[in-house]
Amino acid sequence: MELTQNFVDPAYAEALDFFKKISPDQKGSQLLVKVKGKTVVDLAARVNPDSMTTVFSVSKALSALAIAKLVTDGKLDFEERVSSYWPEFAANGKAEITVRQMLSHQAGLIATDPQITVAMIHDDHAAATALAAQRPLWRPGSGFGYHGLTIGPLMSELCFRITGLTLQQFYDQEIRRPANADAYLGLPESLERRVTELDGDVVPPSAELAAKYPKSTAPQSGLASWGFGIVPFVALTNREGRAFGLPSAGGVASARGLAEAMQWAMGFGEAIPGVSRDVIEDMSQMQVYGYDLGLEQEHRSFGTIFQKSTPVIPFGSYRAIGHDGAAGALLYADPIGEIVFGYTVARFTYPGGFDREIQPIIDLIRKIATAN
Amino acid sequence: MELTQNFVDPAYAEALDFFKKISPDQKGSQLLVKVKGKTVVDLAARVNPDSMTTVFSVSKALSALAIAKLVTDGKLDFEERVSSYWPEFAANGKAEITVRQMLSHQAGLIATDPQITVAMIHDDHAAATALAAQRPLWRPGSGFGYHGLTIGPLMSELCFRITGLTLQQFYDQEIRRPANADAYLGLPESLERRVTELDGDVVPPSAELAAKYPKSTAPQSGLASWGFGIVPFVALTNREGRAFGLPSAGGVASARGLAEAMQWAMGFGEAIPGVSRDVIEDMSQMQVYGYDLGLEQEHRSFGTIFQKSTPVIPFGSYRAIGHDGAAGALLYADPIGEIVFGYTVARFTYPGGFDREIQPIIDLIRKIATAN
Amino acid sequence: MELTQNFVDPAYAEALDFFKKISPDQKGSQLLVKVKGKTVVDLAARVNPDSMTTVFSVSKALSALAIAKLVTDGKLDFEERVSSYWPEFAANGKAEITVRQMLSHQAGLIATDPQITVAMIHDDHAAATALAAQRPLWRPGSGFGYHGLTIGPLMSELCFRITGLTLQQFYDQEIRRPANADAYLGLPESLERRVTELDGDVVPPSAELAAKYPKSTAPQSGLASWGFGIVPFVALTNREGRAFGLPSAGGVASARGLAEAMQWAMGFGEAIPGVSRDVIEDMSQMQVYGYDLGLEQEHRSFGTIFQKSTPVIPFGSYRAIGHDGAAGALLYADPIGEIVFGYTVARFTYPGGFDREIQPIIDLIRKIATAN
Repeated sequence: MELTQNFVDPAYAEALDFFKKISPDQKGSQLLVKVKGKTVVDLAARVNPDSMTTVFSVSKALSALAIAKLVTDGKLDFEERVSSYWPEFAANGKAEITVRQMLSHQAGLIATDPQITVAMIHDDHAAATALAAQRPLWRPGSGFGYHGLTIGPLMSELCFRITGLTLQQFYDQEIRRPANADAYLGLPESLERRVTELDGDVVPPSAELAAKYPKSTAPQSGLASWGFGIVPFVALTNREGRAFGLPSAGGVASARGLAEAMQWAMGFGEAIPGVSRDVIEDMSQMQVYGYDLGLEQEHRSFGTIFQKSTPVIPFGSYRAIGHDGAAGALLYADPIGEIVFGYTVARFTYPGGFDREIQPIIDLIRKIATAN
Repeated sequence: MELTQNFVDPAYAEALDFFKKISPDQKGSQLLVKVKGKTVVDLAARVNPDSMTTVFSVSKALSALAIAKLVTDGKLDFEERVSSYWPEFAANGKAEITVRQMLSHQAGLIATDPQITVAMIHDDHAAATALAAQRPLWRPGSGFGYHGLTIGPLMSELCFRITGLTLQQFYDQEIRRPANADAYLGLPESLERRVTELDGDVVPPSAELAAKYPKSTAPQSGLASWGFGIVPFVALTNREGRAFGLPSAGGVASARGLAEAMQWAMGFGEAIPGVSRDVIEDMSQMQVYGYDLGLEQEHRSFGTIFQKSTPVIPFGSYRAIGHDGAAGALLYADPIGEIVFGYTVARFTYPGGFDREIQPIIDLIRKIATAN
Repeated sequence: MELTQNFVDPAYAEALDFFKKISPDQKGSQLLVKVKGKTVVDLAARVNPDSMTTVFSVSKALSALAIAKLVTDGKLDFEERVSSYWPEFAANGKAEITVRQMLSHQAGLIATDPQITVAMIHDDHAAATALAAQRPLWRPGSGFGYHGLTIGPLMSELCFRITGLTLQQFYDQEIRRPANADAYLGLPESLERRVTELDGDVVPPSAELAAKYPKSTAPQSGLASWGFGIVPFVALTNREGRAFGLPSAGGVASARGLAEAMQWAMGFGEAIPGVSRDVIEDMSQMQVYGYDLGLEQEHRSFGTIFQKSTPVIPFGSYRAIGHDGAAGALLYADPIGEIVFGYTVARFTYPGGFDREIQPIIDLIRKIATAN
């Protein structure tokens, strides 16, 4: 195993043992943990610690920091109606949907009919325009379902209506540059040389899943399978996908970059927080808990944009905020213990999501960080 | 097996094979499927294809078409409070309940205390009067539970307050006659000769279920068992039950009649829809999903009156609308594929509901109808 | 077995057989059942029938009677906002929370951060002051979770703001004294001689549970374990705990006392109800049903303060109101059958809760009481 052990604080030495056990056959993993603002674990296996890879839905945690900045600056109010910023959104029974509801997966806009195409997803406004015209797939407020792809265009259009910038532009200007972090929503061409592509063959969906995604654009089964629709994941991992940096799933980062962006925002230890602690605390409040109509899974929970730690994604205390990604990447911050945890993997299996292999490391960090 | 094979479109030939496998020991089955307005399957086994039988809760799908007509005509607004049409309904904390909530099983009126009798169910107003006076069994909006019997009197009184006609009268005038369909809510005496009674001995409830329904009128256990209360199903299947045509469970139809009523309303293919497509789309929006307090079952979901397709009743796409019946009958329409599916069985087992034996036919129809 | 058989109505003779089977190794049990106002079962094993013990969360049922009196007297309105009685409660996004929501475990105040101490719990206002300042742990209305300890200070402060009396004082004056019942929230020193302490060694939490409650005050895992926090149960069962009588968990009573307080309030048989029957009926309406975020358990349900009977706590009809306690004590009333049931145990195992050993007695009483 080709291991780059940059630093492991002796108090967290056991993390190295756990890290060595993570899938030795996968292309590469990076782990960067900070406690109270100081790096305590900085490891990489089979990959350069400064290389970057697509982190899929971990992008949502980066986007959430940009949204937090909008609220910190008084430009966005979570309790306001979306349509007050974006009038066209009021169509088809959506006039009363609040920003809070839209950003906690309650708006019933996990897809449109006919379904959104790759071309629309990789346009600054096309998918948002289609979503604004759509009737919610469920009565808003009656349930929630992961807006895996669509929360990206929704967040970006909201940002654009307020600032004149796409979410990628606003994030780059207000979060990534000040944080000086290798965590991009929209990767410049010049940095392509630092990209580690996902493991050769993206593992294709199983026969069962493939059956759910027929070539026809007509939704073939219930609500859930339709939500992930016809956008192939490879559209997010090619150069076009990296360049666009879809705010929901197209981010490219190293574990170091993820952790640095988050630490900059949270200001753990003696640092000055990049966004308001009050806003982050507000965003960490549980908005929904239960059966996710998009993922068809129980015990899912969201704050505002951020995932909440639950028995199926047990990454932290009740105050922890974070997001996992389709390939297993993870970024979270936990104010209890003042932990920041960034993890990337250069591999992709469907449906992916939370990577159980890092649970022992998560638990170890919490135990030690909160012990005194 | 005595099979009447009126027509099977060659593209759907496999449906015949599946149909032949359906319970050969049951009294009779009818199946009528239309795609894009054209009949593609028209089969009957051990029964005349034009005979009619009690379809139990499939009646709710017929009633739903009548309610859709009221909205199409601008006479009813789903977002309005029930009490604005029916002032007495405001009693006991129900002033704010909307028509939408009442018609999606959220109003907490699955029964009254003391319980509704057969005589009240078979009166145009008595059950509705009792329900209007009742305190909701749960805080409206805090959950939902199948109003198996009571949604009938509730719909009928709402219709009466608006039109001066019972739901049966309004349905007959506005849906059944224009559609020229053998699907009745209230069967004329003259058509009794075409009735196929349910299989001789109605299969009685199990000992366990019987224990739940003591002779005492006092509710003996939790909310759920009380909901179906003391109305024996035979009250719906005798001549009195057929004549009254309880809008929730007393309908009498052939599979042809069910499909013709639905096709007339939907206007698939080149036909003119009998009710507004916008209204149907609105009624197909998921209103509730989860644990049904009346059925004590997870993964139940309703639009407005109509059942939604879920893993426990997987009859169609996210846009499909329909209803199953206690004996296994089924009627649905799916705008994706433009499918109309009518099925009846002359058998009754408790608790009945969705008939798994027709799942292969449902899946086949969808696959072929949506293939191009 | 040392059994005190004060009275068993011949119609309920079988109850004696069941009672004899209850854990013969536990320190003591008392059972008092009334039907239509008359005692039908009065039993005690290994303990004096007039001795009293800590009944933990059964205290909430006693407190609920006091709250019912406040509403009966027109001093409290469940639909009013808490902040209209208690302005400081409006802090941190709680201005719109209604009394109803707070009293049905929906307010998201199962704990504060940092956590409430024993000293705060045993002060008339300190815990309430901390709770009033807290941000709700979930968006109020988005779910519910058992406020095992904290509903006590919340109820008491609400009572104090209205009456100038703590809930313990108001309960003693308005419920316990008129009912002349040995069921105390705050036990006078003079009655200490009648106390049966819980079985010698309070059974400690398992290793697994102990791991959830570290010495650190920092919440170590998700929302649920934090809710019960750092207050050891022994704080409720020592003299200080009995003297304070925390309205959520510090009550001290005999089974006779529990039943007498409840019968006085309900007025079954020919008695005059101590509180309005309308108010009790209103409080018995299901407010929430489903997954309890505090207990991490499905099929939990609350009316207003009172627990509802569900498959996991099957104590009565849909109209029954009651509460179980951590050690297994139980108090409920069921208007269907006019049953009052009081049960105590002088034992404590963690986490305790509903005692399955008395299920056969519960079922027997219902069957006979509702038979005619």
